[in-house]
Amino acid sequence: MYVKGPMVDYLDRLASGAPEPGGGSASALAAAVGAALVGMVANLTVGKEKYSGVQDRIEELLADSERVRARLQELVQEDTEVYAVLAKAFKMPRGTEEEKQKRDEAVQAACKEATMVPYAIVEQCLEVAKLSEVAAEIGNVNAVSDAGVAALLAEACAQCAALNVKINLGTIKDGAFNEEKWTGVQDILARALELKDRVVRVTYEKLG
Amino acid sequence: MYVKGPMVDYLDRLASGAPEPGGGSASALAAAVGAALVGMVANLTVGKEKYSGVQDRIEELLADSERVRARLQELVQEDTEVYAVLAKAFKMPRGTEEEKQKRDEAVQAACKEATMVPYAIVEQCLEVAKLSEVAAEIGNVNAVSDAGVAALLAEACAQCAALNVKINLGTIKDGAFNEEKWTGVQDILARALELKDRVVRVTYEKLG
Repeated sequence: MYVKGPMVDYLDRLASGAPEPGGGSASALAAAVGAALVGMVANLTVGKEKYSGVQDRIEELLADSERVRARLQELVQEDTEVYAVLAKAFKMPRGTEEEKQKRDEAVQAACKEATMVPYAIVEQCLEVAKLSEVAAEIGNVNAVSDAGVAALLAEACAQCAALNVKINLGTIKDGAFNEEKWTGVQDILARALELKDRVVRVTYEKLG
Repeated sequence: MYVKGPMVDYLDRLASGAPEPGGGSASALAAAVGAALVGMVANLTVGKEKYSGVQDRIEELLADSERVRARLQELVQEDTEVYAVLAKAFKMPRGTEEEKQKRDEAVQAACKEATMVPYAIVEQCLEVAKLSEVAAEIGNVNAVSDAGVAALLAEACAQCAALNVKINLGTIKDGAFNEEKWTGVQDILARALELKDRVVRVTYEKLG
């Protein structure tokens, strides 16, 4: 698991010409950083008398941020695994008509599978953006900038993962699949952008 | 050094209520991910016949991306160190007038020092954005989405680090310092936004 290894090893391998990790995995990592920052805001609010009125919601925020971060940490890895399957399909022989057809079917199936990972990253980024709004609104005001950073990373990473959905759609011939996924991505991106703008505004207001 | 340790340890500590790392360090990490992606595009272009006309510029891009990434990796750590100095100054005694004055001077000095780290992160993010433009324009077209991700992360992280400049300015009483730094940040953010918009447009054009 990449997340269990040294951070610099992941960055070195990302920067190399190695087939993976790529931009999808990298987006999941940066979004996990955002989720961790929501966790930080929650942890700096838990048990504080000044915030006694929101303790239940803060406990929930903490649990949600941990769940979303754990999922994003998994996606750092999953993105590399589906890519490996896809790369293998592309390398299948295509000497005969039958081989060509088998390869094409394998590529199409692997590409759909590979699309769903950055799609899941886009979805989890929206979750981070939603949680960052709660953090900015009810969390410890001394950590409001961390909520702002979480929102900025969440929205940017949603766009990053969207680019990685888009690449795969270029290979997939199932028009209905492509339209459904791309419409879904656009919808999520619009919601993430709205949340980010709101959280950044609240953050600057609270910073004074 | 955090970057030499396991990625998940950094994320766990970021999510905790520990005084550091905070949002500034986290921004430097996410920007280093962006710099690594520029390196990836360069590495996937080096030595490729199709890109023989741009090999000199690609070698330069690779070296620049490595330099900027190394600097950002240092800033992941430096941000935690200046925060520790600032936290120590805040904890100085303030029983007598003399103590109050000494504490205030130490806080002001430490806060200016602490401001310069996220300021440096903002500057390095602009460098990543500039390099991502080169990567998108002349790099291997098969990796253009990685250039797009680098641009998105660079611009978002510049905004993230700007929030961390802003927090410190709230404590600093030197109006001229504050104005100079905040004007500088705004100027860099505007340039990063312009670059990001251009690179994302180029990326979608090349993805077709």
